[in-house]
Amino acid sequence: MPVEELERQYAALQGANLKLDLTRGKPAAAQLDLSDELDGILNGDFTAEDGTDVRNYGNLRGIPEARQLGAELLDVAPEDVMAGGNASLTLMFYVLDAAMHYGILHRPWRDAGPAKAICPVPGYDRHFTLTDSFGMAPVTVAMQDDGPDMDAVERLVQDDPTVRCIWCVPKHSNPTGCTYSPEVVERIARLPKLAAPGFLVLWDNAYAVHDFESPAVELTPILPLARAAGTADAIAMFASTSKITHAGSGVAFVGGGAELLDALERRFSAFMIGPDKVNQLRHARLLSGRLAEHMHSHAVSVQPKFEAVQAGLEQGLGGTGLATWTRPRGGYFVSLDTQPGLAKEVVGLAADAGVVLTPAGATFPGGKDPDDRNIRIAPTFATLDEVVAAIDVLALCIRLASARKSTEAA
Amino acid sequence: MPVEELERQYAALQGANLKLDLTRGKPAAAQLDLSDELDGILNGDFTAEDGTDVRNYGNLRGIPEARQLGAELLDVAPEDVMAGGNASLTLMFYVLDAAMHYGILHRPWRDAGPAKAICPVPGYDRHFTLTDSFGMAPVTVAMQDDGPDMDAVERLVQDDPTVRCIWCVPKHSNPTGCTYSPEVVERIARLPKLAAPGFLVLWDNAYAVHDFESPAVELTPILPLARAAGTADAIAMFASTSKITHAGSGVAFVGGGAELLDALERRFSAFMIGPDKVNQLRHARLLSGRLAEHMHSHAVSVQPKFEAVQAGLEQGLGGTGLATWTRPRGGYFVSLDTQPGLAKEVVGLAADAGVVLTPAGATFPGGKDPDDRNIRIAPTFATLDEVVAAIDVLALCIRLASARKSTEAA
Repeated sequence: MPVEELERQYAALQGANLKLDLTRGKPAAAQLDLSDELDGILNGDFTAEDGTDVRNYGNLRGIPEARQLGAELLDVAPEDVMAGGNASLTLMFYVLDAAMHYGILHRPWRDAGPAKAICPVPGYDRHFTLTDSFGMAPVTVAMQDDGPDMDAVERLVQDDPTVRCIWCVPKHSNPTGCTYSPEVVERIARLPKLAAPGFLVLWDNAYAVHDFESPAVELTPILPLARAAGTADAIAMFASTSKITHAGSGVAFVGGGAELLDALERRFSAFMIGPDKVNQLRHARLLSGRLAEHMHSHAVSVQPKFEAVQAGLEQGLGGTGLATWTRPRGGYFVSLDTQPGLAKEVVGLAADAGVVLTPAGATFPGGKDPDDRNIRIAPTFATLDEVVAAIDVLALCIRLASARKSTEAA
Repeated sequence: MPVEELERQYAALQGANLKLDLTRGKPAAAQLDLSDELDGILNGDFTAEDGTDVRNYGNLRGIPEARQLGAELLDVAPEDVMAGGNASLTLMFYVLDAAMHYGILHRPWRDAGPAKAICPVPGYDRHFTLTDSFGMAPVTVAMQDDGPDMDAVERLVQDDPTVRCIWCVPKHSNPTGCTYSPEVVERIARLPKLAAPGFLVLWDNAYAVHDFESPAVELTPILPLARAAGTADAIAMFASTSKITHAGSGVAFVGGGAELLDALERRFSAFMIGPDKVNQLRHARLLSGRLAEHMHSHAVSVQPKFEAVQAGLEQGLGGTGLATWTRPRGGYFVSLDTQPGLAKEVVGLAADAGVVLTPAGATFPGGKDPDDRNIRIAPTFATLDEVVAAIDVLALCIRLASARKSTEAA
């Protein structure tokens, strides 16, 4: 299609007053509805299974049934998990804060000068922001279909003792949707042995049970491998119910080796009396024994939107060679790559046509995609009709930006 | 009474198999019952007054009606408050963490070497633990009936630029129960002007509405005075619903000047997406327009226990000169001073007779009371009968320890 025709179609879109938003991995209202019975579920019974009155202070590790829920998410035993407050991101902050300034089973990272964090890219912007907030320099490695480029990762930790941690979203990764292969998981489990003492694997299993296609993708459990390798206390695992129940009003979990959890509890005791155990009990009552069923209800809501993304991209861009994109079986995102140098322009064009996308570059540390090609698509929050409409706009914007570039080059 | 008779009475007590606990400022079950309707109070309506769907992510400052509740507690306007998660202690940690390592509107404290914190004593052990966890040295000043010894405080901040903050529990102070006088509040409002840049007043108004005698004690509002003095951004105010609704499952608040809140929000955005807004809405729905009535119900439960403490101490120790104690009109504690050098022994004697008290020294940094005389009495969690029994034991233990000492000296 000639560029003039694309410009014409785009101009028509601009007049259509669209207002579509595919920016964030937020659940849709219909998904939130699935958990509305949380409020009132306790029915006057505030006693945990160990007899704790959850309405009073205390219990830094969380109540047993909440730890059981965390264990189910992280595929570990309940004693390998602490159940905390409403945000795994905040638990990650606590872990990094402890490691940086006070030391977790080792000297504080900051004692040995500026610290670095390995960031597979494209990745999750909030991991990068958190890293940056500690003054840590990001070191990027390529995210491949089976996880991070482990040759590069292993070289980095062996060559540079100031490389202190690696960010991992091991299942339905943000944003590519890939799941780490058994070999990658195994190599990550051994990674702390290659690294300087105090190295941490930050294992953010945010989409542990968030499959929307059946059968569910299997992630190789890392903790048994880490135990075998003697690295369990260097694996900090995270999960939460944020995309299971009400986002931001759920329960977050941190897991790992016994000494790691002991050290974290000691540190946490300086600034916490205990988590919101009432909310923990609510979540256990809602999800115990029916997590799979509950997540299936999410999948019913989410899957059509992801199918619409695939269909729209295929229809608008299939066979053109103008973009590649991932086909996740779970999680919250599709990762799309334009031709180099076009992502910013595409996101800008889409915005001007009323379709807000995650800013180009957001999937890279500092918001800087060196190839300016990656775009994260987050289809869950919008309605199905909005997703269909937004993807059509996105495809057109990619075709237009590509055509403009070819025209300029010609 | 001769020491032998006291020893005989004490030995009889030891055989009575008492098991009483006056250690912590925890609400009793009957107090927690007052808020059980929190669970289910939303009745399917998850929309905040500004239209926010509280079930989804976002809103770092909290929903308007929660900020209104925080404003009521802190005696400020809603725009002077952020509504956070379940623990004011954790908000204090965030503020100190930001000030120490990253700087709040000023250079990080740590950049200028070891930092010190002014700790009025006797005071709250968790403040001291938090201070210590940052490697900050405590500098103690005497807590008087009208607040901290302000002559000493002002000298300290003027003489030593590494004095970075002061801990204040301005109303029904922990543990003495005193409320700062208007003059003290006014001098504290001006304090940051005398101190090095970056100084913070940590204004932990934990017992803001926790009066159990009528009329309620009036605390002079500090923020207007601070605004007049140009120090509002150096006043970090804290409150929570922990002793209003369910302890540990409530909503905490941080307040202060506009630039302070902006700076905190910027920092918080690195590690938080938003607070538990569902729980914020629950609390607003429960307490809006009926906070005073709700706190009156607490008072009905709490006041008899405090009266029992006063009656028991008066009966067992009145006129003996062996102890002095405070007579709070609100809050959670009574502070008792034995003759010097006896607190540890008294607490030990009580424990051996089945009455657990807060460890002697806990009201001083590092757990070290230089005069070994202060004992904190926390009567709320026990039943009224238990309080009566425990105070009898405590009084006997004080008389016994005092008599033993006199005997040794003779």
